[in-house]
Amino acid sequence: MRAFASDNYAGVHPEIMNAIVKANEGDMVSYGDDPVCARAENLLKKHFGEEAQVFFIGTGTAANTLILKHLTRSWNSVICSADSHINVDECGSPESVAGIKLIPAKTDQAKITPDGISELTGCKGFVHHSQPAVVSITQGTELGTLYTVDEIKNICHTAHNEGLLVHMDGARLANAAAALNVSLRELTTDAGVDVLSFGGTKNGCMCAEAAVFLKPGLGSNFEYVRKQGMQLLSKMRFVGAQFEKLLDEDELWLKNALQANRMAALLAEKAGKLNGVEITCPVEANGVFAIIPEKCVAPLQEKFPFYIWNEATGEVRWMTSFKTTEEDIESFVSNLAELLKK
Amino acid sequence: MRAFASDNYAGVHPEIMNAIVKANEGDMVSYGDDPVCARAENLLKKHFGEEAQVFFIGTGTAANTLILKHLTRSWNSVICSADSHINVDECGSPESVAGIKLIPAKTDQAKITPDGISELTGCKGFVHHSQPAVVSITQGTELGTLYTVDEIKNICHTAHNEGLLVHMDGARLANAAAALNVSLRELTTDAGVDVLSFGGTKNGCMCAEAAVFLKPGLGSNFEYVRKQGMQLLSKMRFVGAQFEKLLDEDELWLKNALQANRMAALLAEKAGKLNGVEITCPVEANGVFAIIPEKCVAPLQEKFPFYIWNEATGEVRWMTSFKTTEEDIESFVSNLAELLKK
Amino acid sequence: MRAFASDNYAGVHPEIMNAIVKANEGDMVSYGDDPVCARAENLLKKHFGEEAQVFFIGTGTAANTLILKHLTRSWNSVICSADSHINVDECGSPESVAGIKLIPAKTDQAKITPDGISELTGCKGFVHHSQPAVVSITQGTELGTLYTVDEIKNICHTAHNEGLLVHMDGARLANAAAALNVSLRELTTDAGVDVLSFGGTKNGCMCAEAAVFLKPGLGSNFEYVRKQGMQLLSKMRFVGAQFEKLLDEDELWLKNALQANRMAALLAEKAGKLNGVEITCPVEANGVFAIIPEKCVAPLQEKFPFYIWNEATGEVRWMTSFKTTEEDIESFVSNLAELLKK
Amino acid sequence: MRAFASDNYAGVHPEIMNAIVKANEGDMVSYGDDPVCARAENLLKKHFGEEAQVFFIGTGTAANTLILKHLTRSWNSVICSADSHINVDECGSPESVAGIKLIPAKTDQAKITPDGISELTGCKGFVHHSQPAVVSITQGTELGTLYTVDEIKNICHTAHNEGLLVHMDGARLANAAAALNVSLRELTTDAGVDVLSFGGTKNGCMCAEAAVFLKPGLGSNFEYVRKQGMQLLSKMRFVGAQFEKLLDEDELWLKNALQANRMAALLAEKAGKLNGVEITCPVEANGVFAIIPEKCVAPLQEKFPFYIWNEATGEVRWMTSFKTTEEDIESFVSNLAELLKK
Repeated sequence: MRAFASDNYAGVHPEIMNAIVKANEGDMVSYGDDPVCARAENLLKKHFGEEAQVFFIGTGTAANTLILKHLTRSWNSVICSADSHINVDECGSPESVAGIKLIPAKTDQAKITPDGISELTGCKGFVHHSQPAVVSITQGTELGTLYTVDEIKNICHTAHNEGLLVHMDGARLANAAAALNVSLRELTTDAGVDVLSFGGTKNGCMCAEAAVFLKPGLGSNFEYVRKQGMQLLSKMRFVGAQFEKLLDEDELWLKNALQANRMAALLAEKAGKLNGVEITCPVEANGVFAIIPEKCVAPLQEKFPFYIWNEATGEVRWMTSFKTTEEDIESFVSNLAELLKK
Repeated sequence: MRAFASDNYAGVHPEIMNAIVKANEGDMVSYGDDPVCARAENLLKKHFGEEAQVFFIGTGTAANTLILKHLTRSWNSVICSADSHINVDECGSPESVAGIKLIPAKTDQAKITPDGISELTGCKGFVHHSQPAVVSITQGTELGTLYTVDEIKNICHTAHNEGLLVHMDGARLANAAAALNVSLRELTTDAGVDVLSFGGTKNGCMCAEAAVFLKPGLGSNFEYVRKQGMQLLSKMRFVGAQFEKLLDEDELWLKNALQANRMAALLAEKAGKLNGVEITCPVEANGVFAIIPEKCVAPLQEKFPFYIWNEATGEVRWMTSFKTTEEDIESFVSNLAELLKK
Repeated sequence: MRAFASDNYAGVHPEIMNAIVKANEGDMVSYGDDPVCARAENLLKKHFGEEAQVFFIGTGTAANTLILKHLTRSWNSVICSADSHINVDECGSPESVAGIKLIPAKTDQAKITPDGISELTGCKGFVHHSQPAVVSITQGTELGTLYTVDEIKNICHTAHNEGLLVHMDGARLANAAAALNVSLRELTTDAGVDVLSFGGTKNGCMCAEAAVFLKPGLGSNFEYVRKQGMQLLSKMRFVGAQFEKLLDEDELWLKNALQANRMAALLAEKAGKLNGVEITCPVEANGVFAIIPEKCVAPLQEKFPFYIWNEATGEVRWMTSFKTTEEDIESFVSNLAELLKK
Repeated sequence: MRAFASDNYAGVHPEIMNAIVKANEGDMVSYGDDPVCARAENLLKKHFGEEAQVFFIGTGTAANTLILKHLTRSWNSVICSADSHINVDECGSPESVAGIKLIPAKTDQAKITPDGISELTGCKGFVHHSQPAVVSITQGTELGTLYTVDEIKNICHTAHNEGLLVHMDGARLANAAAALNVSLRELTTDAGVDVLSFGGTKNGCMCAEAAVFLKPGLGSNFEYVRKQGMQLLSKMRFVGAQFEKLLDEDELWLKNALQANRMAALLAEKAGKLNGVEITCPVEANGVFAIIPEKCVAPLQEKFPFYIWNEATGEVRWMTSFKTTEEDIESFVSNLAELLKK
């Protein structure tokens, strides 16, 4: 079975697994004060800048929710896309755990625009309205599209002018950097992003996320937010080990991302040629959105699990991962072709 | 280096690590709907009863906080020990994440008594006071002591009579069961406990905790609490794999716990004989509390990390784990003996 | 000066003030357990049904937020209009105080439709999404429009079929009932509404709101939510006194509402005839929305305070109250006419 | 009937009521931006210092909870007395609404000592523990005792040295200042207090509390906390009017407090002389705590309502108010004397 449901159906990349096994030698200080985590932090600083403050975390939802909690006071709101993971797919975690009001901005293919931000800041100083404090963008987006470096710079420029910070949900940042052929830093620190949820899990790790504060001082006291946010793993060295392998000179993060991206492009190319298949979003990273005849959906899902994205339109989502192979794509597409003929 | 700081300084038991590696085969449904988790759940039901509802979770703090959140409404309080992990060592997670008021009961060696509960329930129906809804006990306690089966039954009896549920923080439940020579079930389900935080991490796992609801229906909708509580790991199969190995017919949970307990007993016996060492709490599981001369503390910590428990009295805490050996104890005690002579 | 900014610029109706003064005789039990509150509660039950559970409260924001907190668990969301007071004008109170996720439904003139509800309930049982539990409607709406009795019945029917409760923000319920020429009960209990925020303040009181649970049992334990929600006034008798006068056989609530409504209709009629004035919403209660030339806004506001509703379109809002007179309207309209000529 | 249950059983002082009636003239800007509130704010600044930032609020629970919310981040705790109103009598409002962990300090007659504070600050920087940020003291205390000016200075000195702010719950500050024969300012601003919950309600008002920030800048953005905390009354002018009268040159606040205090002293003196009556706390303000034979409690309560303070010891609490007269005391004491004889 090869799943196209989510990049997290794939397990762990073998080299990451080896790193985990290797980190098991001897006793080590718990709660992240160990040498493995120290080395991993240094690698993150190498990628994102020496001033980055790094906090390892167990889930992407936690990285997002706890960062936003840290950046806001109770009267603040966070501007986001209506399609964003924080707004749709975290079961109300930002609201329930952090008391945050999310305010959807106008978007284009799930991407926030500078205008979309400016429209929402007129309420500043009006006591009856939540006061925007953060803009949260997802790179790559939940619709498989990407912000260019310039688009991110423009968003940061507008946000900072309005007194807002910029958070990036980077659950698939590796895929974005690989697709745009830029470094992780060019997409984040150098573009003006203030804080990043950096995801390793979808990129081949077992369970490795990080809150990365890119501006000096911004992460102060976040250690308490993480602890009370139930994310301070006692045997944190095993998270550190994953990031250490992912980000070392072998550039596994990049290889994994490139593979996933290539497979998505191949899938879109091949499936898109079939009669009855409509690719609905630009395929810029490792997600393919398409509309196929309803009769094909269930039989195809049986062999290759995937999600229906929009019940109303019949749109489906196919995700690829570091493990997806050309054979998987061939097999998927030929099965789909068969079903279309019936 | 052998640490006596915490049972989580030890890494992962090799057989657990093997189980993790083995779980990496093939694509699997994410978020815990996979066959590995299903098998692990069945093993938990075997140990705790068929009616148990099991939810895997990443940290012990999360298990405690989210369970208590689930069992309470905003106006409820939770009766606990002043020494309890939820009250002291979770950076205010129950209050901050779940809005819960904790009310300390009188205790004897960190153990709550039925009388301690009854004293706190007079406020029922008085609108100005938080309304107690849950009693939370820790087994084994934060001071290394154990509730007997009868003591747990009495607490449950009193609590239920008062309309309260009983939660057990079982971060070291394995150690307790091993020491008392009873099954996990005798200490929990059969004794009347309603909900359990079951900890695998301190027992040799990498990162494996579970919220286990022991009464039918009590866990309904907890899946949402876990998700928004940022604890629904996408690659949950690797948590399932740990529990599967821990709880299978090899009884690794028991072996690991027995080893840790034996080493604590040995340590207490040997160190307790030294002039200048006072063992301060009954050594019933895998923790030893002692007062030693101040001059010995820092030099001993350098070789064998451990915590000062009480700055005022100079009391220290020594924890043993599944990895602690007789040689470790010999070495620790002889070093201590040396330092005492100086 | 006569304000058209809000119905709360008007002070207190003289008869309400007399009732407050009269309630000051003698010592009385505090926190609402006094005979004045008891009489007021009985009057509310007379209007809304014997099974109503009534809780007096200090502000409308509190009535809304605390009711929604009471009706939801942490994983629930509330379906509302994007224009609703809870979504826009309470500085994030539902999110911050109660952790609630608000989900905007499609609306027509600020009115939710049954279809708008049904569209949002497909996520039931999907653990990644907040689970809708309540539909909140405002009667009369924030745009001055009204739900008919049948529209409310249809919403309740749809909501109940989906397992949702219906909350009504009735800050201006009196105006709605007066305009539709129906009883308070016909618009609420009889139409299927489950819980009501009933507002007296905009209707001529000083500070008098109530959470009214219309279905048996729904209000159980709300006394604790109110207390911890900081709304249990110690000298509650003075709130009770206001409701007692408002709702007694003199029907002050109705007289006040009719006067405000009549004045809004008169204003819309007269102002609407002026060249350059566009009435933008149906005028169904005591609010008039209009677009007037930008040059007229500031000079008119100086004499008759009112709010700009929409900076982008230049739309303004004029509210009338029980104190607004025909002379006020004449004066306002003739001033506007003057300004239009300039 | 004359109640000794609470100072809030008394209604409103007639001069305060006149001020409310008088404030009802004409339309006024809502939400506190009116001239009455402006005048009242100025009077508060006259009493507490020109740098005070004043926010009117509806209940004392709200003043306490919202101030503490404003002064803390999620990882902070508040040091208080175990007997304090915030810890005992607000149904968990600080925890539930603001997520605050309260940590009880050792006390002497409900008064926190500098040593009691210092004992609790050793956890600074330890990520597993809530980080203390505020010390909250009550003046006069819940047991009717008073901090001297020097005691408050010492507490502020210790707290500030530890990096903590000092909050004063001044629900009965007027009684304290009257009893100690000092100005309101000497007990607060001049003694080093950072923030004050200033209560008018128990001092003869209907519903008038204020959050008063005594250090420049400390109250910034509190307007949002108040609004989302559901305490921004639309017709705030009527709260302003109460404070204006209470604090003007007639010094009604002082007269009312002196009367209540004198009556408590008289009651303690006369009742204390009776055989079988034991006064249990120093009577320093307007509360008398006593132990009387159990047989007397219920019959006495029937005529003069009061609370049993401690079911275990049989201790009762008698509160006096601005309305209590010498005749009330005579009557109460002679009734008690009668009952004692039976």
